[in-house]
Amino acid sequence: MLGVLGGMGPLAGATFMQRLTLLTPAARDQEHIPAILWSDPRVPDRTAARLAGGEDPLPWLMRGIRGLEAAGCGAVAIPCNTAHGWFDAMQGATRLPILHIVEAAADDLLRLGVGAGRIGLLATKGTLAMRLYQERLEGRGYDCLVPEEAEMDRIVMPAIDRVKANRVAEAYAPLAESAARLMARGARAVVLGCTEIPLGIAAGPALPFPVADTIDALARAAVAWAKPAG
Amino acid sequence: MLGVLGGMGPLAGATFMQRLTLLTPAARDQEHIPAILWSDPRVPDRTAARLAGGEDPLPWLMRGIRGLEAAGCGAVAIPCNTAHGWFDAMQGATRLPILHIVEAAADDLLRLGVGAGRIGLLATKGTLAMRLYQERLEGRGYDCLVPEEAEMDRIVMPAIDRVKANRVAEAYAPLAESAARLMARGARAVVLGCTEIPLGIAAGPALPFPVADTIDALARAAVAWAKPAG
Repeated sequence: MLGVLGGMGPLAGATFMQRLTLLTPAARDQEHIPAILWSDPRVPDRTAARLAGGEDPLPWLMRGIRGLEAAGCGAVAIPCNTAHGWFDAMQGATRLPILHIVEAAADDLLRLGVGAGRIGLLATKGTLAMRLYQERLEGRGYDCLVPEEAEMDRIVMPAIDRVKANRVAEAYAPLAESAARLMARGARAVVLGCTEIPLGIAAGPALPFPVADTIDALARAAVAWAKPAG
Repeated sequence: MLGVLGGMGPLAGATFMQRLTLLTPAARDQEHIPAILWSDPRVPDRTAARLAGGEDPLPWLMRGIRGLEAAGCGAVAIPCNTAHGWFDAMQGATRLPILHIVEAAADDLLRLGVGAGRIGLLATKGTLAMRLYQERLEGRGYDCLVPEEAEMDRIVMPAIDRVKANRVAEAYAPLAESAARLMARGARAVVLGCTEIPLGIAAGPALPFPVADTIDALARAAVAWAKPAG
């Protein structure tokens, strides 16, 4: 049974469960992957904790992991990129393997045929400040381009907040614009490195360049965990 | 915290979580409803249990309810209509209130302005055989029209199975056709009384008559439970 620590935000967690289902080869209910979604949106804001001295989310994250352990889960997926800033603390405190969303995104870049080089990265300010992607991807030959700080404040963070406030359609234009700007600076693909971002991007026409959707990428990693090939 | 007994099918449970989120008035993560989705698609087929001597789903349903109790939930929503054939047994065995999906559908008919009279009912053969809707709606002045048995076997049940097999787009045409036939027989609205049916109907153009979507209706009931109006 897969444990899903969601709620960050809740729409991303629910959409992860949908993508997990749709990406699973199954002909009837009983062939799908048993999973428990612990959707607790009360977890304190991860970016605020890292950048503005906000409340520590770790006790809330661990409460969810303990609940998933008690329910009998065999692994944990966390459809929130910024929460992976607490990955080592969480993994050190549970015997359940936690699937790492940045590793899943890296696998997705390979699936898209983007093996190395410049990539664009759209993520929260917390994820960028913690260098969650840069540290794991630069060793693999990727060079991460990120939006300028003024653009983060003026465009990217407000768009993420709109998704969390159920104003999903209004997030499309600013996020599509920021992704296109990264491509114009030489990126070969854009990683949607905050799980609210693919929700906004899905609200409009498909982008005309490769994107690694971290909800989908984590769902693919979870299917591979639950149904190993061969 | 809301408990959601899902997995029947898994796409319906995940979509319920999405609709719960989108129907909640919230401006940020922390204002959304904490919820746990227990998505165990291994629960034996409910229609087969009722009509063909298949394995009893009740022990599996109760296992999920015990898990939701242990996690600290305060109420249970079950986004599967046919599972409500075991409603009395479940409600008798837990202290948590279970929101009844047929009551939620009846509230949704009122919201749509359909107060009494003939309505169409699309549901599984199990739900129809157990008269889950007829018994609760006829006392309120509704008269339920259902597809003929040959149409159930040839069109409705195979369409439901397609959704469970992730072939959602292929379910639209047969379900839209069956709903239209109920309207032609004099229905004023159609209740999509199996949670796979609104998923199929969402895969194509909106139907040109009122429909009570039981995923949405149950999500509205859950929001009302979690956030009672002032």
